Amino acid sequence: MKIALAQLNYHVGNFESNTAKIISYIHQAEKQGADLIVFAELCVCGYPSRDFLEFNEYIALCEEAARKIAAECHQIACIIGLPTVNNNTEGKDLNNSAYFIEQGQVKAIVNKALLPNYDIFDEYRYFEPSTVFKCIDFKGHRIALTICEDLWNTIENPLYITRPMDMLINEQPDVMINIAASPFAYNHDEERINILKDNASRYQLPLFYVNHVGAQTELIFDGGSLVFDKNGVLIDELPYFQESVAYYQLESSSDLKPLQKPTISQKKEGDIAQIHQALILGIRDYFDKSGFKTATLGLSGGIDSAVVCALAAEALGPENVMAVLLPSRFSSDHSIKDAEGLVKNLGCKSELIPISDITGAFESTLQPQFKNLPFNIAEENIQSRSRAVVLMALCNKFGYILLNTSNKSEAAVGYGTLYGDMCGGISVIGDVYKTQVFELAKYLNREREIIPVNTIVKPPSAELRPNQKDTDSLPEYDILDPILTQYIEHRCSPAEIIKMGYDDHTVRRVLRLVNQAEHKRYQTPPILRVSPKAFGMGRRMPIVGKYLS
Amino acid sequence: MKIALAQLNYHVGNFESNTAKIISYIHQAEKQGADLIVFAELCVCGYPSRDFLEFNEYIALCEEAARKIAAECHQIACIIGLPTVNNNTEGKDLNNSAYFIEQGQVKAIVNKALLPNYDIFDEYRYFEPSTVFKCIDFKGHRIALTICEDLWNTIENPLYITRPMDMLINEQPDVMINIAASPFAYNHDEERINILKDNASRYQLPLFYVNHVGAQTELIFDGGSLVFDKNGVLIDELPYFQESVAYYQLESSSDLKPLQKPTISQKKEGDIAQIHQALILGIRDYFDKSGFKTATLGLSGGIDSAVVCALAAEALGPENVMAVLLPSRFSSDHSIKDAEGLVKNLGCKSELIPISDITGAFESTLQPQFKNLPFNIAEENIQSRSRAVVLMALCNKFGYILLNTSNKSEAAVGYGTLYGDMCGGISVIGDVYKTQVFELAKYLNREREIIPVNTIVKPPSAELRPNQKDTDSLPEYDILDPILTQYIEHRCSPAEIIKMGYDDHTVRRVLRLVNQAEHKRYQTPPILRVSPKAFGMGRRMPIVGKYLS
Repeated sequence: MKIALAQLNYHVGNFESNTAKIISYIHQAEKQGADLIVFAELCVCGYPSRDFLEFNEYIALCEEAARKIAAECHQIACIIGLPTVNNNTEGKDLNNSAYFIEQGQVKAIVNKALLPNYDIFDEYRYFEPSTVFKCIDFKGHRIALTICEDLWNTIENPLYITRPMDMLINEQPDVMINIAASPFAYNHDEERINILKDNASRYQLPLFYVNHVGAQTELIFDGGSLVFDKNGVLIDELPYFQESVAYYQLESSSDLKPLQKPTISQKKEGDIAQIHQALILGIRDYFDKSGFKTATLGLSGGIDSAVVCALAAEALGPENVMAVLLPSRFSSDHSIKDAEGLVKNLGCKSELIPISDITGAFESTLQPQFKNLPFNIAEENIQSRSRAVVLMALCNKFGYILLNTSNKSEAAVGYGTLYGDMCGGISVIGDVYKTQVFELAKYLNREREIIPVNTIVKPPSAELRPNQKDTDSLPEYDILDPILTQYIEHRCSPAEIIKMGYDDHTVRRVLRLVNQAEHKRYQTPPILRVSPKAFGMGRRMPIVGKYLS
Repeated sequence: MKIALAQLNYHVGNFESNTAKIISYIHQAEKQGADLIVFAELCVCGYPSRDFLEFNEYIALCEEAARKIAAECHQIACIIGLPTVNNNTEGKDLNNSAYFIEQGQVKAIVNKALLPNYDIFDEYRYFEPSTVFKCIDFKGHRIALTICEDLWNTIENPLYITRPMDMLINEQPDVMINIAASPFAYNHDEERINILKDNASRYQLPLFYVNHVGAQTELIFDGGSLVFDKNGVLIDELPYFQESVAYYQLESSSDLKPLQKPTISQKKEGDIAQIHQALILGIRDYFDKSGFKTATLGLSGGIDSAVVCALAAEALGPENVMAVLLPSRFSSDHSIKDAEGLVKNLGCKSELIPISDITGAFESTLQPQFKNLPFNIAEENIQSRSRAVVLMALCNKFGYILLNTSNKSEAAVGYGTLYGDMCGGISVIGDVYKTQVFELAKYLNREREIIPVNTIVKPPSAELRPNQKDTDSLPEYDILDPILTQYIEHRCSPAEIIKMGYDDHTVRRVLRLVNQAEHKRYQTPPILRVSPKAFGMGRRMPIVGKYLS
């Protein structure tokens, strides 16, 4: 049989566009003579639908879309993913299902058994796990069809006590198909390949794996759908960060051939190159799917806003980026010069809006209360917040979306002003540590100088008081970032981190800063997720808690 | 045997204070000659610990606290709740456990089987469900010990396929004990009583139920621990919204007596009275547990800020409330007069800080960009955001916490300014619809006029442009609120709501406003939860989604 894999970009809740896209790919594959086209997990509604799934009407719209799709399957069969009603009285009301559609009819329904409920996943919130395992017969083949996590139980210390393929293998299938919704993290592609490879060789079956591509707010799906032969040899790897369709001829479990030149990434790109691609896709889809066109941001002359501006110009086109320079009396000359240099290099739009009259008005208005109290964090934050008010006014007047430019290091330790530089519709580099931001800047300059070298080499400063440096308040970033990584990504204790050779006082201070900043992070924009542990929906912390704070 | 129930206020992650409190109640009950004292679910670490549970050190600290507690159990046994390590390789790494401690030793461990994972609950994120069910023998009694949700499976269409008590009953226990962490919602006490009553009579066993009391950021635990006899008759109901200990003599399943005058609420207070108590506890615990003393808020002369100010004065003392009047050129005279009247009635502190110089500075600074474009939402929001910057500056200078004063109706439809009136450390009435805010105002005035009558009777207005009224943009609140309730609390579809008699156009417009405001709600403060479906951790919506938007 001839199998098509469709790695597509869906839009959560947009049944009209998702259904039209699925149907158009069915028609295309049918013309190519494919017997079967495979779409991704929950493709009908997009992933993650989150609490939309609690609305009966939403589930009914999924079923209606599936009927429309089925009606288009004439000479071709298809596999689609959608939520369905669990007809058992006991247990949750829904299943995470795959429909196998043949000759216009739903011929088989497979429900997901292993429901991820960690990090950004909440599937057990909605779905009842399947306890029934049955293969699907189609054109002389017997297909073991599973859904994403169902194959993720071959690791040490697995999260689940069952293993669906151990049941399905008893029916002697000759091929495995797995439909998935597996979001990007810079280390996740390797892990994914290893687990799926292990499944193919463990069960001695070829494996077709279809992922989503595209961003849904903070979650970025990277595609990279995979095909393995029965020995676990990687036969094909679809492109990352773009839509793609590929065809394969499967005669028997031992006879599998790609019908186009395979696109296996022979040499993996580095983390930073992948993060770059992910962020471009994340920005672009945020604007596309929310119906906005133009981004704005405050350009300080520092590296964070420079990197975000360059990414936005690449994602949206420089003509759709409005960079705003908002100098205060503490801004250094080089800041304005560096920001202007970047604007020139990118060719984006810009405005210069000095904020001293505004901060002056706040200070004189507050004089009766502040009296002669010394300049402190209050006046520093007034500057940052005044900039935010100006930027949001431009958004309100001209229909821009404000990009947040905070990096993960400062988001971690609370080195930012709530309602000031922590504002924005989406945070572009809030999952990128400062040391990675430097690497990203160099990567962006790989062909020509886009980000002025002075922006990269000068010591980071918030410029909210004279001669301020980040290192006045924080450890050097090459000390800070590894400590944060151990705590946030690896969830190490202070004692464990200190044992790695970091200074006792520094470690305890950093971890206290992280835990005391939960109230700030709670109110920040969604953050494009590129690491295995991003702030936001994947990291849920008490605010008024007392651990390490 | 003599049983003590301890309904206490814990603090998430504060092992020192939780352990000290548990031990002091053990000593007290021992002095009273109790054989057994029962504490609530996960009392050792507080509830909910959220992702603190992913830190091995956190779990080790729980175990260490349990050892300290065990060492204090000499003549008395106790039941405490804590997370423990699941020693099976397969499945999640933790259990939600109860320790039965006798003579300084952990004599039995019970693990929770039914793990709530809906609304605000995420227990399946952390815990492996128990599949082992065993009673505990103690002093001639056989105790069926379960944890909270374990008893919540007697309803129609249950969420789980197992029922722990159906297994435990086979061992012929003579008493049930259930330790819980069941947060307040204005309709939840009735539901809780009915389910537990049904369990007592179904299994023909007396039932002791111990709940948490106190707030953990947005979640408010209301106490109201319960005792039923074997016929399902309510024997005692501990006080709501306060710590309490009570003693009972249990001779056999048919012989159970309270050892003090029972405190059953013979006549239930209305929803508004309960919400009032919940909000007072919520404010007080937020400040106590985060170590702050003084609240500030912007007082507009309108009903929302008036109600929040009155609640804060009651919770914290009027001397710890700084009300700030921030008139603009659009503020009416009666607004200032009404706000001043409230300040006088409450005896709280106040400042008058006119914002026209500040908004003037924004407008003149933005003149080169805004040119002669007409006054619109941009200038409206500048006012709201200028107020937020002033209030946050006072917080930064004087160590106040800003209270958010948005109500649930406006939070729902996005009738508020992000980084403006949507700011604050905690949202006090963000789960209270506008029509309920009016009721709350009348309730606050039940003994004397606290909130000026004019504040209650005048038409609501944001006063961001001349003669603005809420009804310029929104339906009347007595139309809006029922539509919102049907959509948010009951998750009805537009068609279902229209069928109830609401105008087609109005319903679709309101629901579109709700779904288009997700990006705003994502960045708002935690909201004290008083309804079965509050914005925040219990309602998780896509931002860039397309359903009904």
